[in-house]
Amino acid sequence: MSVIGKPFPIRDAREKALGTAEYTTDLKMPGMLYGKVLRSPIHHGRVLSIDTSRAEALPGVRAVITGRDIKPIIYGFGWRHRKDKYALAIDKVRYKGDEIAAVAAVDEDTAEEALDLIKVELEELPAVFDADAALVPGAPLVHDDAPGNIVKAYDIHKGDVDRAFADAFKVYEHRFATQRVHQSYLEPYGCVVHWDPFGKVTAWIGSMNNSGIRLMLADALDLPVTKVRVIQPWVGGSFGSKVTLCNIYPIAAYLSKKAGSKPVRIIYTREEEFYASRPRVSCVIHVKTGVTRDGCLLARQVRLINDAGAYSEMAPAMLEVMCHRSDSVYRIPNVRIDAKLVYTNKSSIGAYRGYGNPQMTFAYESQFDVIADDLGIDPAEFRLKNATRPGDVTTHGWQITSCGLPDAIETVRDRSKWAEKRGKGRDVARGVGMACTIHEGDDRHYLGFTGSNASVEIHEDGRVVVISGEGEYGQGFQTIAAQIAAEVLGVPLESVDVTFPDTDRTPYALGPWGSRLTISGGNAVRMAAEDARKQLFEVAAEKLEARAEDLESSEGRIFVKGSIERSIAVAEAASAALYRWGGKLILGRGTEEPNTTCMDPDAQSNPCSAYSFAAQVAEVEVDRKTGQVKLLGLYTSNDGGNILNTTLAEGQVVGCALQGIGYACTENMMFIDGAQPNPSFLQSGVPNALDVPPIDVHFTDTDDPYGPFGAKGLSELGAPPVAAAVANAIYDAVGVRLTNLPLAPEKVVRVLRQKSTATKGDGQS
Amino acid sequence: MSVIGKPFPIRDAREKALGTAEYTTDLKMPGMLYGKVLRSPIHHGRVLSIDTSRAEALPGVRAVITGRDIKPIIYGFGWRHRKDKYALAIDKVRYKGDEIAAVAAVDEDTAEEALDLIKVELEELPAVFDADAALVPGAPLVHDDAPGNIVKAYDIHKGDVDRAFADAFKVYEHRFATQRVHQSYLEPYGCVVHWDPFGKVTAWIGSMNNSGIRLMLADALDLPVTKVRVIQPWVGGSFGSKVTLCNIYPIAAYLSKKAGSKPVRIIYTREEEFYASRPRVSCVIHVKTGVTRDGCLLARQVRLINDAGAYSEMAPAMLEVMCHRSDSVYRIPNVRIDAKLVYTNKSSIGAYRGYGNPQMTFAYESQFDVIADDLGIDPAEFRLKNATRPGDVTTHGWQITSCGLPDAIETVRDRSKWAEKRGKGRDVARGVGMACTIHEGDDRHYLGFTGSNASVEIHEDGRVVVISGEGEYGQGFQTIAAQIAAEVLGVPLESVDVTFPDTDRTPYALGPWGSRLTISGGNAVRMAAEDARKQLFEVAAEKLEARAEDLESSEGRIFVKGSIERSIAVAEAASAALYRWGGKLILGRGTEEPNTTCMDPDAQSNPCSAYSFAAQVAEVEVDRKTGQVKLLGLYTSNDGGNILNTTLAEGQVVGCALQGIGYACTENMMFIDGAQPNPSFLQSGVPNALDVPPIDVHFTDTDDPYGPFGAKGLSELGAPPVAAAVANAIYDAVGVRLTNLPLAPEKVVRVLRQKSTATKGDGQS
Repeated sequence: MSVIGKPFPIRDAREKALGTAEYTTDLKMPGMLYGKVLRSPIHHGRVLSIDTSRAEALPGVRAVITGRDIKPIIYGFGWRHRKDKYALAIDKVRYKGDEIAAVAAVDEDTAEEALDLIKVELEELPAVFDADAALVPGAPLVHDDAPGNIVKAYDIHKGDVDRAFADAFKVYEHRFATQRVHQSYLEPYGCVVHWDPFGKVTAWIGSMNNSGIRLMLADALDLPVTKVRVIQPWVGGSFGSKVTLCNIYPIAAYLSKKAGSKPVRIIYTREEEFYASRPRVSCVIHVKTGVTRDGCLLARQVRLINDAGAYSEMAPAMLEVMCHRSDSVYRIPNVRIDAKLVYTNKSSIGAYRGYGNPQMTFAYESQFDVIADDLGIDPAEFRLKNATRPGDVTTHGWQITSCGLPDAIETVRDRSKWAEKRGKGRDVARGVGMACTIHEGDDRHYLGFTGSNASVEIHEDGRVVVISGEGEYGQGFQTIAAQIAAEVLGVPLESVDVTFPDTDRTPYALGPWGSRLTISGGNAVRMAAEDARKQLFEVAAEKLEARAEDLESSEGRIFVKGSIERSIAVAEAASAALYRWGGKLILGRGTEEPNTTCMDPDAQSNPCSAYSFAAQVAEVEVDRKTGQVKLLGLYTSNDGGNILNTTLAEGQVVGCALQGIGYACTENMMFIDGAQPNPSFLQSGVPNALDVPPIDVHFTDTDDPYGPFGAKGLSELGAPPVAAAVANAIYDAVGVRLTNLPLAPEKVVRVLRQKSTATKGDGQS
Repeated sequence: MSVIGKPFPIRDAREKALGTAEYTTDLKMPGMLYGKVLRSPIHHGRVLSIDTSRAEALPGVRAVITGRDIKPIIYGFGWRHRKDKYALAIDKVRYKGDEIAAVAAVDEDTAEEALDLIKVELEELPAVFDADAALVPGAPLVHDDAPGNIVKAYDIHKGDVDRAFADAFKVYEHRFATQRVHQSYLEPYGCVVHWDPFGKVTAWIGSMNNSGIRLMLADALDLPVTKVRVIQPWVGGSFGSKVTLCNIYPIAAYLSKKAGSKPVRIIYTREEEFYASRPRVSCVIHVKTGVTRDGCLLARQVRLINDAGAYSEMAPAMLEVMCHRSDSVYRIPNVRIDAKLVYTNKSSIGAYRGYGNPQMTFAYESQFDVIADDLGIDPAEFRLKNATRPGDVTTHGWQITSCGLPDAIETVRDRSKWAEKRGKGRDVARGVGMACTIHEGDDRHYLGFTGSNASVEIHEDGRVVVISGEGEYGQGFQTIAAQIAAEVLGVPLESVDVTFPDTDRTPYALGPWGSRLTISGGNAVRMAAEDARKQLFEVAAEKLEARAEDLESSEGRIFVKGSIERSIAVAEAASAALYRWGGKLILGRGTEEPNTTCMDPDAQSNPCSAYSFAAQVAEVEVDRKTGQVKLLGLYTSNDGGNILNTTLAEGQVVGCALQGIGYACTENMMFIDGAQPNPSFLQSGVPNALDVPPIDVHFTDTDDPYGPFGAKGLSELGAPPVAAAVANAIYDAVGVRLTNLPLAPEKVVRVLRQKSTATKGDGQS
């Protein structure tokens, strides 16, 4: 391998460092207007009247729109999701922040001023903010057509859980609760949308799902899909959030149309990010687990309640994933899951790196240590004993091919000096804790196309252009795609360019969610490059008077195997292919479609082409007085298959782990009677560079049969185990068990006090 | 046919009418600078020194460049052309207007002011302005490495001309001279060029040859070709001029780089258009023709001298074309051509709709009438007798397939009421004159790729996207390409979009020169659409449970032949192709390459896949006192094969004919000792709407075997015959023969006076 597996720097670093990268907020267009959104000041209410006349009369205002100006189309993420949202409130507002009206003006100040001039009359309705409360009969209904406030419910039963509990040596039952957290990307939601005089809508959106956003925007505007074009500028992070349609996209489109076809830019403020975007869902998770005397898992029953907020967005799919994923880290024959997604009068939720996994892993892996402790088994041994292994078919039907989990557990155990540090902490208030996780590589939710398409062109000077609709938003796809194409074609990495997504130009692609990008996008690039190589070698064979199958290429030259003096430059062959009689550009196409299955009536499926694994050990020191938990180190071992670029892979693990640390220890989007007291980076507990402990990153030696060059997804492995690993380490250090996230100092202090006053047993909070 | 042959309006009309079309001069980019060029004030001289220090010190100036700042690369059009030009003068200036230095500043006024502050010391050299004078031994040399000032020379001999002249019943000899004229497009030369910090040069250029401009610009800047990207904005006309590299493109690139990677815009003033662009070449043409007693052409000998100006540009290829083309209108077994292209100290010349044809047609077709008159044969009969016919192979080897020439001659004869009007003019000073022409459809000058590539995509809502690198610059290619794709695919015209050229996105294409666009570009689109249809029908066949070969499509639906109730929408099939398991976008590719040949050592070739023909009759009234020639009507019959869009075809003929009228009667870029006294639209004699006579447009009923749906090129047929038809009509009206263009009143008066004082014979001027 000449470029695969090497530590090449990420491609977009130079533009970002030089400041030449143009994000949505940098876009300027002739005649462009600035849009602002008027949001609901109350949590739940009926819209009685809206008077925009004073706003319209303000000099500089070019358009004002309300629910009357839009087509009454209820849109949503589609597929198994529930469509429940208008672009602007028509009848009701359902959370404090719901969109009521919008203004486009010649500058932002004028637009802001105009918002104050819009008079809205609302009839306030009772609101509900808590998922448990929303399930109580007689609770206020967020959507009249969703009785009991239930968005979606699953009841999945595998094996015979009741019998297994009866047979079990011991059964454990715990309740865990997790909080909302924001993805904390640096670039807020934003768009520039131009509804041109000929009916075509062009939208510059820093999304991570360009083709999907196009479909949803066309849906919301009631336009044929090719009347909508989505162009991806540079993107300042998303981490799962920007995968669905944000209301400002159709709002900007309607404003653009009403303002006489001027482009309209709307950029979220940081406060809007906290009031009206899509943070990670908060959950209440009841886990009941039965084991044999020698520590084998027999059965698990889970009751899960997720708080969707006012609109369902991607939450239903996430619920499905949460029902399945974590049951495959270990061998467990009987499982039952009763899961409910519930509407409340809060803003919606969305995907965030891990997609339900951090919540479930926190619950399962915390309980795992309680069980190990109770059974007197070392938690590492307990995990190794039950760990899923290559060739397993899990309870839900997942076919595990490559699996580095046992290796990962042993690695973090050894590298963290587990045996030395474990169980000795209670005197010095130091401890170590372990947790593991499984993650998807792609995830099939429906039978249609969930693969990826790519084209690879070889131009006349040997330059290779990779065309994929899969977007770059900082995660490194352009670098990886270039490496794959360079490796297949035998050309230097510098000679490969990767284009930016533009739905009018680049092929249909699902986008980088579900850790699918390297596997699915990368395989499509690999296949397209192989197709291009075939065409290239045919021309080269003619020139070299050899057979195409006898050729190979390296460092930009094609030569006859075994006789290196018979060679031709890639550039020369590509040039000959184009400029010869009847010539055409070398253009390879690749279509990847994983041979996976989606949930059948028995809730069985094999949704992923590859499964990734990770194990982590956290080492902590707890200040018994203040409850402060200091993370001394995080040891990670990650099975991401064969690693295509060690620099990028390490960056993914470290970045993701840091988000896991924030989730575990400090971050919390608080709600008090629906109100948000801490809507900012400063107040919400986002960790900064000083909060990063030494992070030890290890990759297992795994080679996956499906992914390109043996790779699997790894960008979501860093976060899920952190919270449980830290909670387990706290237990190891000071002997208390925390079951509510974040693992904040006041909670530590509280359980330590409870413990010191209790007659026996560990405190819980 | 449901869309082919119909009078659809041209597609770009709406954007142009609404003012939303953005031309190069409308482009605004963050940080963009404005460039201006310092031009030579003398005709010929050596550069001794340039002092830019005062210009650099002017506030607002961001970069000043001279020949010292550029790579000393001599570039040119490539292929058989002579490379003889630097982006900025390094050693010498060769015409008044040659580029010496350039400035980029924050606005145009500052750039202009800075030019005045550049101090240039030149050593003036003797100059030569006339092609005949430049050929005299001892004449000043424009380029030291071009002895005798000869750029290129041809001496082509077919058959035995001397023997044929000896055998001839009569031999005629005349000298004709033609003037320089400007293409008079509305949008002057311009560009915005951005040399980005990573070494990629992006150029927005209203060119008609995007792929070629990219090659030439890469050549001039010494960059790999894919480091240059050319994007075509809207273009305000070219008519052949904007096919080669204008010095401002590399100049703007160097300014951009030196100014710290800021985009630089340079737009020609109208005066620069007249001083430093590429007008039509002026020629001196000696024609000697021998005929039999009954009026058959036996032999023709031509001596041709073309005045290239200071740099060769496209002039060598044009000389080659002029040596060949006109010998194929009529059957003529023996021809000899001695042609020379000569450097002078004037600005360069370039292509202009007709590409040498208007000059040669004026000479040949004028002499044709002299001969007919002398032999006492009606000129229409004389032309019919000698006309080339379908199946002919001409003296130069051209294989004539479809040919509507005899039909065209008869048509204009009859529609003009030729018999009634002819030869009766001398009393009332009214007359009719006829002329014919042949034109190319594409023109092979080398053995490499001279075809066209296109892709056709069918999107999920049935929208069809045609991707071609062939540009739209007002001639209607987008309309024609959309019609071809719609016809092949059986979809409504409105559902077809055609993309704009962008060399990073659209396939390699030669551009719309040589009347090749409909034939070559159109055939590529047809083939790509057929390929897409094949893929579409495969999916539809599956859905309809039929065989693909039993399907046909119409108005956006695909159905089983003979059972119309079994049908599926194109959108549904396209959507199924994309979203199904392993799906991909339907993408058809087409590569057109005509089976033509270029000049062999015997100067034989068959350069075109199809040849187009036209005949015209002009009717004039001459004011004997003032010499004013009033054009009463122009009757045209055109063999452009099967007409794909009658509205556009008529527009092409009328627009081209109007340019022919200006050339014939009024236009002249004058030079007096190298100085240009009339550098403006107002002074140079460009006709306006009031000068348009009634133009009768007829198309022959011809169906070409090669072109898409039987079409041939027709966009250059309107101009070439006009000058001879008018000159012949003047002769018919008042009995004098004018042999120098334009046919200006002062010349008419002079020859009328000469005639009245001469004892016998017609006057000549």
